[in-house]
Amino acid sequence: MDEFSFIDKLKKLFAGIGDETILGIGDDCAVVPVSADESFVVTTDMLVEGVHFLEGGISPRELGGKSLAVNLSDVAAMGARPVASFLSVALPADKRGGWAEEFARGYSDMSARFDVKPAGGDTTSSKGGVAINVTVVGRAPNKNLKYRSGARVGDVVAVTGFLGISAAANFINEIVPQVAEGAWLGERQEVGAMMDLSDGLAGDLVHILRASGVGAEVELTKIPTSHPLELALAGGEDYKLLLTASADGFEALAADYRERFESELYPVGRIIAGIPEIVWLENGMRLLRDFRGFDHFVIHITRLTNTTDGDAVQLIVIIL
Amino acid sequence: MDEFSFIDKLKKLFAGIGDETILGIGDDCAVVPVSADESFVVTTDMLVEGVHFLEGGISPRELGGKSLAVNLSDVAAMGARPVASFLSVALPADKRGGWAEEFARGYSDMSARFDVKPAGGDTTSSKGGVAINVTVVGRAPNKNLKYRSGARVGDVVAVTGFLGISAAANFINEIVPQVAEGAWLGERQEVGAMMDLSDGLAGDLVHILRASGVGAEVELTKIPTSHPLELALAGGEDYKLLLTASADGFEALAADYRERFESELYPVGRIIAGIPEIVWLENGMRLLRDFRGFDHFVIHITRLTNTTDGDAVQLIVIIL
Repeated sequence: MDEFSFIDKLKKLFAGIGDETILGIGDDCAVVPVSADESFVVTTDMLVEGVHFLEGGISPRELGGKSLAVNLSDVAAMGARPVASFLSVALPADKRGGWAEEFARGYSDMSARFDVKPAGGDTTSSKGGVAINVTVVGRAPNKNLKYRSGARVGDVVAVTGFLGISAAANFINEIVPQVAEGAWLGERQEVGAMMDLSDGLAGDLVHILRASGVGAEVELTKIPTSHPLELALAGGEDYKLLLTASADGFEALAADYRERFESELYPVGRIIAGIPEIVWLENGMRLLRDFRGFDHFVIHITRLTNTTDGDAVQLIVIIL
Repeated sequence: MDEFSFIDKLKKLFAGIGDETILGIGDDCAVVPVSADESFVVTTDMLVEGVHFLEGGISPRELGGKSLAVNLSDVAAMGARPVASFLSVALPADKRGGWAEEFARGYSDMSARFDVKPAGGDTTSSKGGVAINVTVVGRAPNKNLKYRSGARVGDVVAVTGFLGISAAANFINEIVPQVAEGAWLGERQEVGAMMDLSDGLAGDLVHILRASGVGAEVELTKIPTSHPLELALAGGEDYKLLLTASADGFEALAADYRERFESELYPVGRIIAGIPEIVWLENGMRLLRDFRGFDHFVIHITRLTNTTDGDAVQLIVIIL
């Protein structure tokens, strides 16, 4: 049973239990209504040594920041503002001294940077490796909340930054979640659907298409990247935002975004009627490629530097 | 660095970050104000194989239920009502089939029993053992919230059930959190402080005394138990509620509780002025014992059944 079939089983088993006004599994966050006007959003993420990170592959301080950042990104993707976090950490005996302090400092710095209160948690020992779980609670006016189901035919598909950087760098350890950008985009009624790019545009956009019951065309020449398209579209860990916006309003939205953040909203395609799949275009010509297959692979990228001619060489190994 | 000194370090490091109206580390749940009238409460708990449970020591179905139940108990202890839960689980390869399904069924049954929506989570693989993290969100009118700091001199100290059962049974796998009892006690203004009994009365009551700046006398002959006092006072995993209530109102409170739940509120002592320590009495005579020391020990209890004379024998091994 792989992760996705287990989640499907959980969905079936959990259907119909509890308050039906709470929106559960399926979006970047669960949504718990507070009043007719406001909701809390909640997201949780577990990082396990040997699966999500390797000892030596990331410093404890970077890991502390990253473990919070990936959840802040999920809250931003809903158009909400993060307010509190909950950290659980299981530590083996050799990590309870300086390692734990450095980890805590990374978590604390990321909390302070985005003004999110570390409000609780659990610490325990581990007989195996490190396991970390972070839950973040955010809040937003209901009218600001952006769901994966919010894409409409004719919408522009856009991303908030360059893609493939993490993948090209053999995964990046220092994530900067787009907290202010997400909350700002939440306030804009031009924005339809939104989510964060954690698995790569090729796979993530399909989640929006399925939830919205639409298709999309994506123009490869418009993908903002300085890396091979495979990395930009399926490399993952970008933690930029993927959104759709009304065609009428996109230009004004992008202009205001540029003024507010000194950064671009990059239009990469548009929402079309049809089955929830991506039609890839190159200069408007349809390509018969499917980048989605990448999410079934493990991508290992090793950068070999100091070769005889002084250039960096990237060796990309794709393991089934 | 033990767990408590790490938590102290975290508290210092996290002080002053984020929204100061959020009540963080120190009570059974964090409290996030929603409005002038209402708050959300949030609690999280991590269970790690080899630390909190052993393979074979608990069935996956029981573990699924217990991992949610311990958090429901924390929400009940605040006088709040649980509304949604978030489950993260890291599973090694051999646990992804029937084991995972049984675990999910136990979690689902506990969710349905207390009408708490499983609203999200994370599933991942593990290179080591099983790791589980559950977060529960509850809500309550602000006037219902019970804090550890709510004990006043003269209050009756009471517990909601028999103690030491889990410890005597070599830890119990099926926890029944007092969800309805907690919410009901939350509505009663006679109740001052409340918390759940997870580490044993001797240790847990001291948390209330420290938070409230008071002392307590506890009468050993009034402890509801059919087991040795060491197990009743320091065995842990009772998941009953410990509370203080005004002396004037206690009798009416206990009568109403009896009528509502067909169960007793057991008065075991009273809050006194002084340093935050427990004075143990036996028939009113002061004893020079301190049961708190038990929380520094690992208590292993092995029940040997089918001895030659047919009696069950309990072998209690205390390992430093």
